[in-house]
Amino acid sequence: MHAYRTHTCAALRASDAGATVRLSGWVHRKRDHGGVLFMDLRDHHGLTQCVVGQGSPVFAVADALRPESVVTVTGEVVRREGATVNPKLPTGEVEVRVRELSVQSEAAVLPIQVAGEAEFPEDLRLRYRFLDLRRERQHRNIMLRAGVIASIRRRMIEAGFTEFQTPILTASSPEGARDYLVPSRLHPGTFYALPQAPQQFKQLCMVAGFDRYFQIAPCFRDEASRADRSPGEFYQLDFEMSFVTQEDVFAAIEPVLTGVFEEFSDFSGTKRAVTPAPFPRIPFERAMLEFGSDKPDLRNPIRIKDVTEHFRGGAFGLFARNIDKGAVVRAIPAPGAGGNPRSFFDKLNEWAREQGAGGLGYITFEGGEARGPIARNLEPERAAAIREVCGLGDGDAVFFACDKPAAAAKFAGQVRTRLGAELDLVEKDAFRFCWVTDFPMYERNEETGQIEFSHNPFSMPQGGLEALDGMDPLDIKAFQYDIVCNGIELSSGAIRNHRPDIMLRAFAIAGYAAEHVEERFGGMLNAFRYGAPPHGGSAPGIDRIVMLLADEPNIREVILFPMNQQAEDLMMGAPAPVEPSRLKELHIRLDLPPQKGEGRGAASSKAS
Amino acid sequence: MHAYRTHTCAALRASDAGATVRLSGWVHRKRDHGGVLFMDLRDHHGLTQCVVGQGSPVFAVADALRPESVVTVTGEVVRREGATVNPKLPTGEVEVRVRELSVQSEAAVLPIQVAGEAEFPEDLRLRYRFLDLRRERQHRNIMLRAGVIASIRRRMIEAGFTEFQTPILTASSPEGARDYLVPSRLHPGTFYALPQAPQQFKQLCMVAGFDRYFQIAPCFRDEASRADRSPGEFYQLDFEMSFVTQEDVFAAIEPVLTGVFEEFSDFSGTKRAVTPAPFPRIPFERAMLEFGSDKPDLRNPIRIKDVTEHFRGGAFGLFARNIDKGAVVRAIPAPGAGGNPRSFFDKLNEWAREQGAGGLGYITFEGGEARGPIARNLEPERAAAIREVCGLGDGDAVFFACDKPAAAAKFAGQVRTRLGAELDLVEKDAFRFCWVTDFPMYERNEETGQIEFSHNPFSMPQGGLEALDGMDPLDIKAFQYDIVCNGIELSSGAIRNHRPDIMLRAFAIAGYAAEHVEERFGGMLNAFRYGAPPHGGSAPGIDRIVMLLADEPNIREVILFPMNQQAEDLMMGAPAPVEPSRLKELHIRLDLPPQKGEGRGAASSKAS
Repeated sequence: MHAYRTHTCAALRASDAGATVRLSGWVHRKRDHGGVLFMDLRDHHGLTQCVVGQGSPVFAVADALRPESVVTVTGEVVRREGATVNPKLPTGEVEVRVRELSVQSEAAVLPIQVAGEAEFPEDLRLRYRFLDLRRERQHRNIMLRAGVIASIRRRMIEAGFTEFQTPILTASSPEGARDYLVPSRLHPGTFYALPQAPQQFKQLCMVAGFDRYFQIAPCFRDEASRADRSPGEFYQLDFEMSFVTQEDVFAAIEPVLTGVFEEFSDFSGTKRAVTPAPFPRIPFERAMLEFGSDKPDLRNPIRIKDVTEHFRGGAFGLFARNIDKGAVVRAIPAPGAGGNPRSFFDKLNEWAREQGAGGLGYITFEGGEARGPIARNLEPERAAAIREVCGLGDGDAVFFACDKPAAAAKFAGQVRTRLGAELDLVEKDAFRFCWVTDFPMYERNEETGQIEFSHNPFSMPQGGLEALDGMDPLDIKAFQYDIVCNGIELSSGAIRNHRPDIMLRAFAIAGYAAEHVEERFGGMLNAFRYGAPPHGGSAPGIDRIVMLLADEPNIREVILFPMNQQAEDLMMGAPAPVEPSRLKELHIRLDLPPQKGEGRGAASSKAS
Repeated sequence: MHAYRTHTCAALRASDAGATVRLSGWVHRKRDHGGVLFMDLRDHHGLTQCVVGQGSPVFAVADALRPESVVTVTGEVVRREGATVNPKLPTGEVEVRVRELSVQSEAAVLPIQVAGEAEFPEDLRLRYRFLDLRRERQHRNIMLRAGVIASIRRRMIEAGFTEFQTPILTASSPEGARDYLVPSRLHPGTFYALPQAPQQFKQLCMVAGFDRYFQIAPCFRDEASRADRSPGEFYQLDFEMSFVTQEDVFAAIEPVLTGVFEEFSDFSGTKRAVTPAPFPRIPFERAMLEFGSDKPDLRNPIRIKDVTEHFRGGAFGLFARNIDKGAVVRAIPAPGAGGNPRSFFDKLNEWAREQGAGGLGYITFEGGEARGPIARNLEPERAAAIREVCGLGDGDAVFFACDKPAAAAKFAGQVRTRLGAELDLVEKDAFRFCWVTDFPMYERNEETGQIEFSHNPFSMPQGGLEALDGMDPLDIKAFQYDIVCNGIELSSGAIRNHRPDIMLRAFAIAGYAAEHVEERFGGMLNAFRYGAPPHGGSAPGIDRIVMLLADEPNIREVILFPMNQQAEDLMMGAPAPVEPSRLKELHIRLDLPPQKGEGRGAASSKAS
């Protein structure tokens, strides 16, 4: 008989009755029923009820065991009778009558409980993460994550992609966020950087002639923590393809995403619907108009309309005057909202003021007429036209955002989200994907008046060199696209600019001299000078995908050993001070901020 | 028609003749045959011959193209005739008559050639790694690596393992090598460390109740570069299992290794044999005796014998006197070596002196007699007994290593290796695996006389607490094992010590106070106090596996973007100086070694 187990704690069935078996696991729960000890033994796979009779020579040992102690039990499988059968448990038809019991590891008194649903402070959970991870929800989340990643890998390989490992000790990258630095021992005064993303390396893979790259890639950014971004490290499905158009990239990754989401769609217990490929493509301009956001949540059926022309020069003077000064009016249809009491509209108006808007004007439609404060001042034919544009009828309402285009779009988007929730219009149990495409290449900095890159300076401008040379920069679109699911951006991507001549021209438009570009991005430019294929890709965030599937709003719930929001690993005690001799070896020393009663730090700060 | 390609450069066959196709790729080679331009177009998948006729409107453009430029060609597939068919190329039956050609990217004059077999200095190759990787051997090596890793993953998952990602920004680990450090911005004066291996995390996975962990894990050690170890980072197949014995670990990983090695055994062009599971298990003591090494190369059929007793008190005074002083004599059989001329033995003797040995004594057997300088001074029955022990006969020879046991074992091992090569006895085209087991838990430090851990202090001692309490420490074995293939250690592994009481006792024997152990390894000890399962694992080196399969002696040939031996990334320019403001943010400043004509560095060094 095996030293530890003949079966896992999920294996035994009624058909095993009579067999002598050995199980190992953690003491999940213990109950003493009139001198008979019932002990749920738990391992990774499941639970099995074990019974120790009062007269048993191991009773005293079993009785003294604290929960979460690890034991090995040997005994006979016995069918449970009648009401003692537990239909919720795969092993619920049997129990093991314990004959031998050996303690592999005694547990001390627990700082957090494993069995049960009690909540514990996050810092305590992270400090004892090895206990926290034994709890059912946490254990399932991490297994989901592993399953998702394995599924993605399998699907990417089946789609003809090859996984490569790119360096983790590398050079500072131009992504723009803050790098983590690693002092070099061999080269005094120099530093490696951890990659913010393998962006340059994956492009170099393409230049090196590997056709379809992917990597479940660790990325590192020394940035403030957010609910959806772990401090320190995160993972992305980094991929890149050569000799492709934007549509090829979409066609490659859509089946991977739908496949993964469908595979795990019932993790929450409810089967969730998934957008089939091809996903809707929504140009950036339309996204800003219809959804007031470049991250449209397609579960919300509301579509914003531009109704500027219906207010221009109209009787509703507030909007008409603003329009003359360059404002636009966006209408947010609210089907079914017309019948609400005045307090409903007042509450929304108050909320709008809290968001910094002047208020939230609206019209309701009833008995074929437009009603409410705006309608009272607006020509009826204009109100009717607005109703028509918004596809509304009696019993509906429409809200308005009137401001400069960008501000109006943003606020209309907020109203759309709020109304979707308020009116319970948002589709449930669904993953709704879309692509947002055709991002502008440039934008004007409102403060300086300068032309700047809108997003990624390394994307290929639509129309190439000709567009750069001949068009108003603000009209140029980039081959750049986002994947959005349920209003969450999973990833940015692009067809890259692989042509040094086009890149230098693109940077020149944004005011960068060629020497500057060569100095900062010379590595990539240089590589592109030895034969670079047209290429593009994207990098959906793994953690966000798992968060969506697990329906967890906190990223730390889907990471095995996460740092806390202060970027500390409470379990391992990182970061920590190190011996001065180690710093000496690395040719650095501390330069601490001044502390109370200690002037030295301040002095050395000034000197540096 | 697709913008870039209807087919890859490996796709076209005779059956495609007549079709109009589009290909994209790199201009691999160009030949001008009487005004007709033959151009081999290359992509990741293969090569296709493209032809541009003299009168073609694209002739001038094609003619001017430098090799490695990227082009898209459109044209008709035409069958090649008779002798122009190239049977070595999958596409060798056809060529594409180019009608349209567009240049996607012009290549500058190349610093290293892609086509052909020319050799280039490694630093140049690494600086232009994106070109180097286009070369056939390099491209194949990296694809092999990707294939090996994907195969390992698939096999591990099929074997019930789950892949987890453990943190990369973490705490200093007790592995003993030098960590890379990462200064913390948020916590002045503290540092993260990059993991030397996820050893503690994988053990914590077991404590957290995940049954079978694996990870293709990046590991980081700030150590001197070696041919088989890349500076900076390397990858291992890290795995760990709960509720297992040593034999369970062996049984889990053996099929994965044989499977992977068999899958890629013909990469070199010759099918190579692979040791079937179960691999031979060789206890450490026997390995040192029979192979003179704890990394036995089983392709070499020579087995070393101990012949101390046959020399003790014998007529060959040199050995007899040394034996009295504690030396041993190891015999290295050399089948078929007897007939060699005197010069053969002289050369080996000279080599032995170069290795630091006194010389290399030997006996040859001929006509039923022992011959040579030793035999002349040794009783014939002793020589006959040695012949018997070594299984030798006429025409054979035997060499001797006489020294203190450890030195004799080591030297005998060197002689065995040398003779295996010299006599061409080593099996070719084979991967011969074995386990080396039963490593001693402790050893005596020759200089201090102290008892020290031999290898890993965290392995479970065989016999547990009883052994620690009752046995001579030098007799205690550990449940520790190495996987060796062709004399190369792929990995160390162990059944871990999961019991705080046993761990504290084990450290006490090596002279460590409990407080010291709690202070240094408190994290793990603490975790083990809340119910830890018996567990064990190993971590075969990925890079070494790929090196073996690719038959590459240099690890940099199997890494996508390796650093050079000075731990520099020549392509990306890492490590590099950073802005002082960045260091300020990280609460550190430089503390550079003194340089010529610059006293400040020295002064600040002294001050720190």
